[in-house]
Amino acid sequence: MIKPPCRIALVGATGAVGEAIAAILAERDFPVAELVPLASERSAGGTVAFGKRQLTVRLLEDFDFSGIDIAFFAAGGAVSAVHAPRAAAAGAVVIDNSSHFRQEPDVPLVVSEVNPQALAQRPRGIIANPNCSTMQMLVALAPIHRAVGIERINVASYQSVSGAGRVAMEELGRQTSALLNFHPVEPKVFPVQIAFNVIPQIDEFLDNGYTREEMKMVWETRKILGDDQIQVNATCVRVPVFYGHALACHIETRERISASRARTLLRQAPGVKLVDGGRSGVQPGPAPRPGSVAAKGRYPTPVGHAAGSDQVHVGRIREDISHASGLNLWLVADNIRKGAALNAVQVAELLVESLL
Amino acid sequence: MIKPPCRIALVGATGAVGEAIAAILAERDFPVAELVPLASERSAGGTVAFGKRQLTVRLLEDFDFSGIDIAFFAAGGAVSAVHAPRAAAAGAVVIDNSSHFRQEPDVPLVVSEVNPQALAQRPRGIIANPNCSTMQMLVALAPIHRAVGIERINVASYQSVSGAGRVAMEELGRQTSALLNFHPVEPKVFPVQIAFNVIPQIDEFLDNGYTREEMKMVWETRKILGDDQIQVNATCVRVPVFYGHALACHIETRERISASRARTLLRQAPGVKLVDGGRSGVQPGPAPRPGSVAAKGRYPTPVGHAAGSDQVHVGRIREDISHASGLNLWLVADNIRKGAALNAVQVAELLVESLL
Repeated sequence: MIKPPCRIALVGATGAVGEAIAAILAERDFPVAELVPLASERSAGGTVAFGKRQLTVRLLEDFDFSGIDIAFFAAGGAVSAVHAPRAAAAGAVVIDNSSHFRQEPDVPLVVSEVNPQALAQRPRGIIANPNCSTMQMLVALAPIHRAVGIERINVASYQSVSGAGRVAMEELGRQTSALLNFHPVEPKVFPVQIAFNVIPQIDEFLDNGYTREEMKMVWETRKILGDDQIQVNATCVRVPVFYGHALACHIETRERISASRARTLLRQAPGVKLVDGGRSGVQPGPAPRPGSVAAKGRYPTPVGHAAGSDQVHVGRIREDISHASGLNLWLVADNIRKGAALNAVQVAELLVESLL
Repeated sequence: MIKPPCRIALVGATGAVGEAIAAILAERDFPVAELVPLASERSAGGTVAFGKRQLTVRLLEDFDFSGIDIAFFAAGGAVSAVHAPRAAAAGAVVIDNSSHFRQEPDVPLVVSEVNPQALAQRPRGIIANPNCSTMQMLVALAPIHRAVGIERINVASYQSVSGAGRVAMEELGRQTSALLNFHPVEPKVFPVQIAFNVIPQIDEFLDNGYTREEMKMVWETRKILGDDQIQVNATCVRVPVFYGHALACHIETRERISASRARTLLRQAPGVKLVDGGRSGVQPGPAPRPGSVAAKGRYPTPVGHAAGSDQVHVGRIREDISHASGLNLWLVADNIRKGAALNAVQVAELLVESLL
């Protein structure tokens, strides 16, 4: 039972996701009685913005979570492993952005638009926030799954560097600038140069040859949709984009679905914004003026639609010419907002609104 | 019958592909008696490099192709439509890089490693060079198709801007530099901003919702492999990379093929370079030092392996966990070399060597 206004702890307050959580809480007028930003020794003592105020960041290590209603964790798996159970034991509901607890059977893994009902059972007091790519994929695919049953998803991702944190964004900026000035670059955060390059590795390699990021899309899709039969085959790739992940999804459904029915479904789906030329996008005739609304309106891109937006943008919906019940979609979302911080706040809103 | 040394015409000599053809002819010691660079009025009168010499570019419009053995065309479809038949009528063998003649039944469409035998029948004196993405895909997939039969290909592309020519490369450089200096950008060549963005449109939209680039991968794959049954489902995306296209290929075969058999096949395949961690790429343990050979050795990237290279680099080979006879591969090649100029020169070499 969480009764507003809430006392909130924010672990990892100085990171890209932590900062976005604070901004989104303010922006959405979340009923906050007190917000306590927390971080490791390296960042404690500094300040973070919350609305118009600057809050001093306190040290996580010895913070007592008693009296805290909701604790957001956005500081990585190792920190969550140690401190999230401690926060939960003190009575806080933990909303954890790391992957540490996502596969635990007694920890709900929730996309606010897709499986809010899973929040009701949280015996450990911990709720996990899904992986950014999986999250945006399921906001768009869940309505289709419910209508016609998705059997298999082939997905290739175009993931921005902000998914790897602030240091990764700095690395893209620094490398790009160095290269434009004919200076050599030395990769630090990414295994190889990311500027003007694409890297087919996100997270570590597993024994089956997939990366952990790719397998998260398999594991988390099944858990969130509550369907162990759904097949996912992913190739996850980092691209030199600051904000916004894109996904090329080729799905196969139990029952055939037309592109136009999919558009109708998605037009009504919560959290989804259709940016699909549809007939106008495929009409013959002169191309729209570059940069014009018509050009922007044909399909979503990370810069044009995702960055700073709350919605999952869906375009390029077309029937798969290679499969009798296949459908292709192009999905773009802000990986820091819907892919992480926004969903965490939306989960908190559900907890408060329903007094779950 | 083409007997070396050859008199060669090079149409579009000042473009990205034309320039690369001249460089590759010199680099590979192609038996050239004379090289005549040709271009439109805008570029005629300038010079292009051929080995250590600078050649003056002549005007295409009134050039007489009599006595020319081989005419390379790299100036776009409209130019080829008008001037390629004229060159062929004068007795030259035309090797055309545009898409204009690719689907004509009496024009062979040839990847030098895949279907060189198709060169024998060229009733119109015109040979078409395939689309860059299709070309690199088939160099790697043809050996697998021959061994176990490919039924379906799901492919998502990561295509560099050089595929759209020199002006597109300039646009990426200019936009990137402007953004790093906090200046606004105005798209000219691409429909929307390409710097720090990805764009799911290459070429125009067709009635079925696919782009022409995506459909080229369907049409050309079938023609080159001589198999109308093979299914291809493509999403083609432009990424802010200067040189090198990458493809995430998820294939389904008639007969199951293991990742290790695929590696063995590809290790022996002409034009292919395996850059696949294999066991070493998936072993647990500390990650290799960033930028080290070990890190580079795990998988190919456009900057690390493609740019300036003749081979199609294949990595991330793994059995598809979502399909009983599926296999995933990650393919990277220099779109200007193997994707265009190099293959054109290799076709010329086949014509001269075999006196076809």
